[in-house]
Amino acid sequence: MRGTGKRIVVALGGNALGDTPEKQLRQVRVAARIMADLIQEGYELVIGHGNGPQVGMIRSAMDYAAEAGPKTPYMPFAECGAMSQGFIGYHLQQALSQTLTKRGIRKTVVSVVTQVQVDKADPAFLSPTKPIGMFYSQREAERMAEEKGFLFMEDAGRGYRRVVPSPKPSRIVELSAIRRMVLSGLVVIAAGGGGIPVVEDEIGLHGVDAVIDKDRTCCCLATALKADIFLILTAVDQVWLHFNQPDRQPLSQLTVDEAEQYMETGEFGKGSMYPKVEACVDFVRALPGRTAVITSLERAKEALGGFTGTRICSPLPHPGELEEEQDSLTVEI
Amino acid sequence: MRGTGKRIVVALGGNALGDTPEKQLRQVRVAARIMADLIQEGYELVIGHGNGPQVGMIRSAMDYAAEAGPKTPYMPFAECGAMSQGFIGYHLQQALSQTLTKRGIRKTVVSVVTQVQVDKADPAFLSPTKPIGMFYSQREAERMAEEKGFLFMEDAGRGYRRVVPSPKPSRIVELSAIRRMVLSGLVVIAAGGGGIPVVEDEIGLHGVDAVIDKDRTCCCLATALKADIFLILTAVDQVWLHFNQPDRQPLSQLTVDEAEQYMETGEFGKGSMYPKVEACVDFVRALPGRTAVITSLERAKEALGGFTGTRICSPLPHPGELEEEQDSLTVEI
Repeated sequence: MRGTGKRIVVALGGNALGDTPEKQLRQVRVAARIMADLIQEGYELVIGHGNGPQVGMIRSAMDYAAEAGPKTPYMPFAECGAMSQGFIGYHLQQALSQTLTKRGIRKTVVSVVTQVQVDKADPAFLSPTKPIGMFYSQREAERMAEEKGFLFMEDAGRGYRRVVPSPKPSRIVELSAIRRMVLSGLVVIAAGGGGIPVVEDEIGLHGVDAVIDKDRTCCCLATALKADIFLILTAVDQVWLHFNQPDRQPLSQLTVDEAEQYMETGEFGKGSMYPKVEACVDFVRALPGRTAVITSLERAKEALGGFTGTRICSPLPHPGELEEEQDSLTVEI
Repeated sequence: MRGTGKRIVVALGGNALGDTPEKQLRQVRVAARIMADLIQEGYELVIGHGNGPQVGMIRSAMDYAAEAGPKTPYMPFAECGAMSQGFIGYHLQQALSQTLTKRGIRKTVVSVVTQVQVDKADPAFLSPTKPIGMFYSQREAERMAEEKGFLFMEDAGRGYRRVVPSPKPSRIVELSAIRRMVLSGLVVIAAGGGGIPVVEDEIGLHGVDAVIDKDRTCCCLATALKADIFLILTAVDQVWLHFNQPDRQPLSQLTVDEAEQYMETGEFGKGSMYPKVEACVDFVRALPGRTAVITSLERAKEALGGFTGTRICSPLPHPGELEEEQDSLTVEI
């Protein structure tokens, strides 16, 4: 092990993990191999992950059983998210532990159930946009909308799906535990699915029907843990200008200013690359001098070496600022 | 806070947590109040818990949706257990954190996904006895037995239920992480439902269809963490001789030898009190001089004060041994 000791917060896409237990078990082995590569390179790793397909599957089963089935209770969204953290965390920690053991690396991997607080006044609550769970007929959707106050939207001719808000994360409730675990040398899996969404009111914290964007939550985690690198792993090796067009062009490096310009001119898809670039910009703005990288799971190691991926970083400093900025790289939590 | 600093591993019964999200949210508040009392008394707490009703509910929903529903995949037992750890851990850590915050105690509570290894050669695999999941008709049970190789048993005239083995825990996979978390001052919730059952073979660790008794797993946890006290919280305040009979008699203190005698003479119900007393005996045999206590959730604090509950402890030492035994009380992990 080289022992560079740099701290990386990884945001691993839920789509990379499959939507059945069998697929997930196969897929986590791929992720584990690559995470182990990074640990072997000496990086200190904190892993966040998505849960889209998994929580969708859990929700569908729970919805169906509650509606038609053997008297199982209706399961709110926050609780389904908590279940998905257990389900994904189990497979991921098992696969990563084993890969590390086989390579003779003594590191303990552990998943923590993570709540993420959102603001009750977040405007996202006024316009739910995120489809979740199973498809219903128009009649079923109308009945449930009336009975339970849920909002439904027609989804690409396949039926009606419930939509929930996607508010911004404001606080990782278990942050101090995660920090202590990282400091004690554990490889921590946290904030699965963007975290279990909770709001605070007079009775305290409680779950809310919402989905928190996992890249945003991982950005909070990376910032709070003062990560050296925030790494978003997605389906493509690099961010592209004019994506899917004949004159497309890969971006290997972007300053936060350039990234924001492209965001404004609509270069990045709202539901796909835009929030990832935004999370990277937020991270680098919060911790100038640090780097955010977007690449694919498969090419993570090469991207950290600078051979692929898209790096988002601070503007080049004026000569006099250089020393100060480099100092900030060594700040520890 | 008095700061006695004694470490307690608590085994909290799954039945005390309810089988719907609403009931569980109410019930965890009761548990949280009592756990907070113990923390306030200065005890260092590690919480294990059962998951019988919860994993049963998750399994029923998953089974039903996989059989009859919206193309959700069949969910193996280990994965359902992992989901239940997320589901219960979320509510429990939320409630306990809030209770501590309200009392001005700055402690972070966190749940960890926990795998527990069992021996493939455990004789329990030859005779599955633990009923899980939903009830089926005889025809359905026979079909699934043929298709999937599951074993079913008729359950008290209510239909057929799948039965799985209940092997002994041999290793808590995430033990070193739990130990470090405890040492760093966190209140740790671990080994939910007795742990996710895994076996090891040539391909490494993987899940297995089984249920591990949570009192046995908590005994392993208490022993490995060198707890001062192992506390089993169940439905009764004390262990009884001649339970439910006119000449019944509460037991306030038992030496391990006395406890074993009563176990042999059939004083304790095989599916209820016997495994709890056995877990206590195993703990005290492994760490002579330490104490195991069986009582109800509601009276936990009184029981630790010696006012109720059943204490199981080492035989009274011969005069010369006293000093040595007391020394062992101060051993730290």
